Amino acid sequence: MSNEYIPANVWVDDSNSDNKWANINRPVSGATHQKKRPVGQHPLQLYSLGTPNGQKVTILLEELLALGIQEAEYDAYLINIGEGEQFSSGFVEVNPNSKIPALVDKSADDEVNVFESASILVYLAEKFGQFLAKEGAARTQTFNWLFWAQGSAPFLGGGFGHFYAYADEKQQYPINRFAMEVKRQLDVLDKQLAKNRYVAGGEYSIADMAIWPWYGNLVLGNLYDAAEFLQVETYRHVVRWAKMLAQREALQRGRIINCSWGEEWEQVPERHSAADIDQVIKLGR
Amino acid sequence: MSNEYIPANVWVDDSNSDNKWANINRPVSGATHQKKRPVGQHPLQLYSLGTPNGQKVTILLEELLALGIQEAEYDAYLINIGEGEQFSSGFVEVNPNSKIPALVDKSADDEVNVFESASILVYLAEKFGQFLAKEGAARTQTFNWLFWAQGSAPFLGGGFGHFYAYADEKQQYPINRFAMEVKRQLDVLDKQLAKNRYVAGGEYSIADMAIWPWYGNLVLGNLYDAAEFLQVETYRHVVRWAKMLAQREALQRGRIINCSWGEEWEQVPERHSAADIDQVIKLGR
Repeated sequence: MSNEYIPANVWVDDSNSDNKWANINRPVSGATHQKKRPVGQHPLQLYSLGTPNGQKVTILLEELLALGIQEAEYDAYLINIGEGEQFSSGFVEVNPNSKIPALVDKSADDEVNVFESASILVYLAEKFGQFLAKEGAARTQTFNWLFWAQGSAPFLGGGFGHFYAYADEKQQYPINRFAMEVKRQLDVLDKQLAKNRYVAGGEYSIADMAIWPWYGNLVLGNLYDAAEFLQVETYRHVVRWAKMLAQREALQRGRIINCSWGEEWEQVPERHSAADIDQVIKLGR
Repeated sequence: MSNEYIPANVWVDDSNSDNKWANINRPVSGATHQKKRPVGQHPLQLYSLGTPNGQKVTILLEELLALGIQEAEYDAYLINIGEGEQFSSGFVEVNPNSKIPALVDKSADDEVNVFESASILVYLAEKFGQFLAKEGAARTQTFNWLFWAQGSAPFLGGGFGHFYAYADEKQQYPINRFAMEVKRQLDVLDKQLAKNRYVAGGEYSIADMAIWPWYGNLVLGNLYDAAEFLQVETYRHVVRWAKMLAQREALQRGRIINCSWGEEWEQVPERHSAADIDQVIKLGR
């Protein structure tokens, strides 16, 4: 490493990068512009994007609908983070952290705002009594792995993904640091899935739905073009689990919502009824 | 930035750093040596270290004991991560992720292992019915901010803290990236605490206990010697809240457990009864 760098006493924002993703990072929070959020007809209003954090929630919503729970009907609006829509006043009112996904439940006694992908998973799982055991060891294990996902994925996304795929210039030390950690995380998951059908044990749960969009997509080669670099196929129990979940129709539906990229049959920028997905997903078959 | 670096097709572990903290990172998981975990007399057995993630749990346990809940009595054993004790077979049985803190509840119907600091907070809050509302908007807001903490702190600890304080050599790009994000996070918290007495609203909750050890310690100048660099005093609502919580006796007790560094009155390497804390804390008064 040849960078000799001594930080100033006080950090100063001297960013003037042309990097699209660097420019959506800011040292302050709050709204940059006034714009109301759109509101549809269903009780659940989702503001999201089809990135892994967004996919978690739409997979759960589609799983709930697949069980016949009509109260889980939802409108899903696309938040274009490259255009700064997460900094609109309407979005910030729902999530002061300006990150997708965010949910409003109009049917709650107090209209309630829910943010952080895993908080939305817990909220919906408890509201509908599905995919999170109400008590006992199964509940504890689901929370263990759900929090594992939320504390681990920043090293995959904000760490490895940023430095390997998005940063203006590749730097050895951060790539090494985060590649090592991601491989360790994959090995943790692999050992768990060698002994268990699903992440938290014998039952499909919100822990799987939190982990598949990051680590499932990673081992299936859908993330950062890093399959060879990380030798993802060596984590064969993770691959087994990732492929098993990818067979679920609800996951296939949920993962393409609020996507505005990829193949034509992978794009459902907005979702207001099942038909919005039906007509797109047929194109891929 | 002068580093020209092209990653290999396949990542190879070529780490041979002398950096103490770099050497506890590994690309694989699992036990490195056989060693049983110690077990004390109380129902709750905690294996931890007095870092921010450890403090979360001991603060909650001391708050529960301060309410007179005797069933929250616990034995706290120190896991020396610099010595690799998180890779002992006994610890890995409790937490396959080899991170502190980890908890075993001997009193549960099935002896249950709980890992991830926030999963332990939820487990104890639900077990004893404290610091997490059972329903409604207060519960949702607590989960919102609890998950916010778990998804945000990796950028403070594994990101900013590593590159600013622990990495072998300081590098401008990663320090800038993570300093900007930590300042944004502090601003999010500051706006929330401008409107609310506690993080999740009007009531003290496990969200405060998750956030204080990281962001409270940071604004009080106890973390990474970064108070001036990040201008922490400008986040005055966070400072108000951090000082308010620091007045709580339970927090003062919880934050020094499993500490083996600092002043003599800040060190309670193991805790098996209130007396272990009482005698140490008196030294500081």
